[in-house]
Amino acid sequence: VNLLGLIQSKKAGRPIEPEQMDQLVGAVLAGAVPDYQLAALLTVICYEKLNRLETVSMTRAFLDSGDRLSWEGISRPVVDKHSTGGVGDKVSLALVPSMAAAGLAMPKMSGRGLGHTGGTIDKLESIPGLRTDLSLDEIHGILEETGCVVAGQTAQLVPADKIFYALRDATDTVREMGLVAASVMSKKLAAGAPCIVLDVKCGNGAFFLNETEAREFAGLAMHIGGEFDRQVACVISDMDQPLGQAVGNTLEVLEVIDLLAGKRAFPDLRELLLSLGSVLLVISQKQPDLGAARLELAALLDSGIVYDKFREWIRAQGGRLEELPEDIDKLQGVQVFPIYSLKSGIVSAIDCAGLGEIARRCGAGRLSQDDVIVANAGLLCHVSLGDRIEQGTELARLFMAQDRLSAANTLSAQALAAFRVQDGCAVTRHQTVIDVLLP
Amino acid sequence: VNLLGLIQSKKAGRPIEPEQMDQLVGAVLAGAVPDYQLAALLTVICYEKLNRLETVSMTRAFLDSGDRLSWEGISRPVVDKHSTGGVGDKVSLALVPSMAAAGLAMPKMSGRGLGHTGGTIDKLESIPGLRTDLSLDEIHGILEETGCVVAGQTAQLVPADKIFYALRDATDTVREMGLVAASVMSKKLAAGAPCIVLDVKCGNGAFFLNETEAREFAGLAMHIGGEFDRQVACVISDMDQPLGQAVGNTLEVLEVIDLLAGKRAFPDLRELLLSLGSVLLVISQKQPDLGAARLELAALLDSGIVYDKFREWIRAQGGRLEELPEDIDKLQGVQVFPIYSLKSGIVSAIDCAGLGEIARRCGAGRLSQDDVIVANAGLLCHVSLGDRIEQGTELARLFMAQDRLSAANTLSAQALAAFRVQDGCAVTRHQTVIDVLLP
Repeated sequence: VNLLGLIQSKKAGRPIEPEQMDQLVGAVLAGAVPDYQLAALLTVICYEKLNRLETVSMTRAFLDSGDRLSWEGISRPVVDKHSTGGVGDKVSLALVPSMAAAGLAMPKMSGRGLGHTGGTIDKLESIPGLRTDLSLDEIHGILEETGCVVAGQTAQLVPADKIFYALRDATDTVREMGLVAASVMSKKLAAGAPCIVLDVKCGNGAFFLNETEAREFAGLAMHIGGEFDRQVACVISDMDQPLGQAVGNTLEVLEVIDLLAGKRAFPDLRELLLSLGSVLLVISQKQPDLGAARLELAALLDSGIVYDKFREWIRAQGGRLEELPEDIDKLQGVQVFPIYSLKSGIVSAIDCAGLGEIARRCGAGRLSQDDVIVANAGLLCHVSLGDRIEQGTELARLFMAQDRLSAANTLSAQALAAFRVQDGCAVTRHQTVIDVLLP
Repeated sequence: VNLLGLIQSKKAGRPIEPEQMDQLVGAVLAGAVPDYQLAALLTVICYEKLNRLETVSMTRAFLDSGDRLSWEGISRPVVDKHSTGGVGDKVSLALVPSMAAAGLAMPKMSGRGLGHTGGTIDKLESIPGLRTDLSLDEIHGILEETGCVVAGQTAQLVPADKIFYALRDATDTVREMGLVAASVMSKKLAAGAPCIVLDVKCGNGAFFLNETEAREFAGLAMHIGGEFDRQVACVISDMDQPLGQAVGNTLEVLEVIDLLAGKRAFPDLRELLLSLGSVLLVISQKQPDLGAARLELAALLDSGIVYDKFREWIRAQGGRLEELPEDIDKLQGVQVFPIYSLKSGIVSAIDCAGLGEIARRCGAGRLSQDDVIVANAGLLCHVSLGDRIEQGTELARLFMAQDRLSAANTLSAQALAAFRVQDGCAVTRHQTVIDVLLP
């Protein structure tokens, strides 16, 4: 493939042809493209944009670059979910057993993220004994038995995306919508589920900073889904404040357990769970419409059936829930710093991305691929947008890893500054689920 | 320097600050910048453009990256000339002795080009015995003695530009005006002459395809000159047809000799020579205005004084003009292919860049840095735009290196196709010199 010619032609406004896209991705995979030329092309793409056809052909070339999982032999309908990333986003931990309780099978293949907290895998691994390094046979066995499985990637799914992404990350070319969609969708398509729901988050704690971007992405992702004969639906959800209260790994697992056990209510988390779950029940044709699906799911949740399924699943992956601390005051290896409001008023803004970053620096997330996560580190966010609070109200509580204590003063000050408390302003309560888009 | 931050900030429309530019160029020179990040930044710069301040600070950072030549000790005013490149552009070979004949000193430091023909150095080296690998002492000695010298670069002038240019060439980022101006001007400034004339060519055989681009470049270059306290003037000249007739190395030397010896007239070449030369006489304050300067130069040319100076100069660099063939029919190592017109009419267009490429493929230029130039290869273009010709008129004559003869049919056909001959159309004769811009 003639990279210089491709750069010139894309710069002149001519779309990249499907065969050129195949050749490009093939050459990149073969190590035959100098990274400075790929960097230049990606930068040009950020200015010129990819059209839908180019995005689909990039997705296809990515998909063809590696293995694909197959769920043949699984007797239940197989569904999958992807989140574009948020702060305190533990909904997969509740969605997987919910879907299994409703008769579906939900295998989730995850990597270890570089987010504010670890990925779903890291969260699960905060449960003593739990294994995610499962063989394909184990994955199929546990999935067929329980309807649930979450594992690290065993196969080589979409190796081309890894190369492109590393370069995009280093050259400020991560945000072009076509590149984002090809990256996300090729991985979801390779993971093999015929029905996929995307949690497309927008807000100051999300990748998409506003609803317009989120809707653009959703439209593109659903178009790609259609081109590959998959049922792809999207839930547009708010990320102007953390989802639930916990941001961390053990902290999020404990919150999910409280939700499923009915010990405490987390209305935003429950709402998102019901929305994502009912969409999957509809597109997998388990239920005829969202209303019926929602009723079924709520009943499964409230009856404790989902909680039973959760425990069955965790046990099947070797996890010993009984060894988790019963409540958050007994977490080992972390020191607690409560953050109190200095004034009374209404919580009018929360720096959600800022809180995520604070959780990461408390030890909950990685700064580089080699960092070790401290399972019990993170934070709880005790107030929501629109809450009326008094001076001295606990806004948040930091759980700081022992080896991060030197940053305690800085992080506490930053946590306090992450909340804007104003007098006499009317703040409408945020809606967690903004829209549901069916294919 | 934080390259990712610089990419983001430039993309957001913020100019690169002078200190950032220094850090960037310093880091690139130190090998501390991954080439994919520099490629991304250069691509962003092609979209966002460099403003005048950024262009000046890039020029300064480039200039500071290497050595500078000094002409202290040379008793005559020192002048320099740069051409943005054209087909058959042998004017330096005549300008250097013209300036010396008028009492100036003109040292030209050149590299070996990748153009249609070699650079000025390659052209000179087609003269038996002539040396261009001169030491700085030799350069100063010959210059002080004759007023002329053309040598390969001995010092490390602007090493940063070499790195940037190699990357720009491979990533389609060569055309941004600020990058072009910083590259050209840093090299001219490093070469040390206080008075510089730029031959800014436009047309289908030039880097700048139209007059607008050429004028934009000229304005920027003169602005940079002012910032560095140099006298910089520009001649905007036409490159819609080869300059003179010869395109090659020996062929161009022989043409210059014919011009200086008064054996044959080349009106376009003479016109450009007089324009560039009179500009240098004015900005070096040898003459009060262009009219007087032109008269002086024409007299020097017509009296044979410039030719005497040319021979003195070539001798001083070791060249034995007497060993050059007396006329082009006696050139060794090449085979001649005349190209005849198939119809009568007026020459309405010449693919000037195409003729340059044909000359290169005949053996006159390099396709890669390591290629060996065949001194006697090239072509003569026998007709000019607006000429009325008959069927059978010789349009051009190719001088093909023996080892390129397998391409003879292709190149002959391409040469024929490079001329458009039309009936009954009125073509105004082209003006070689379009404008003269004094500082």
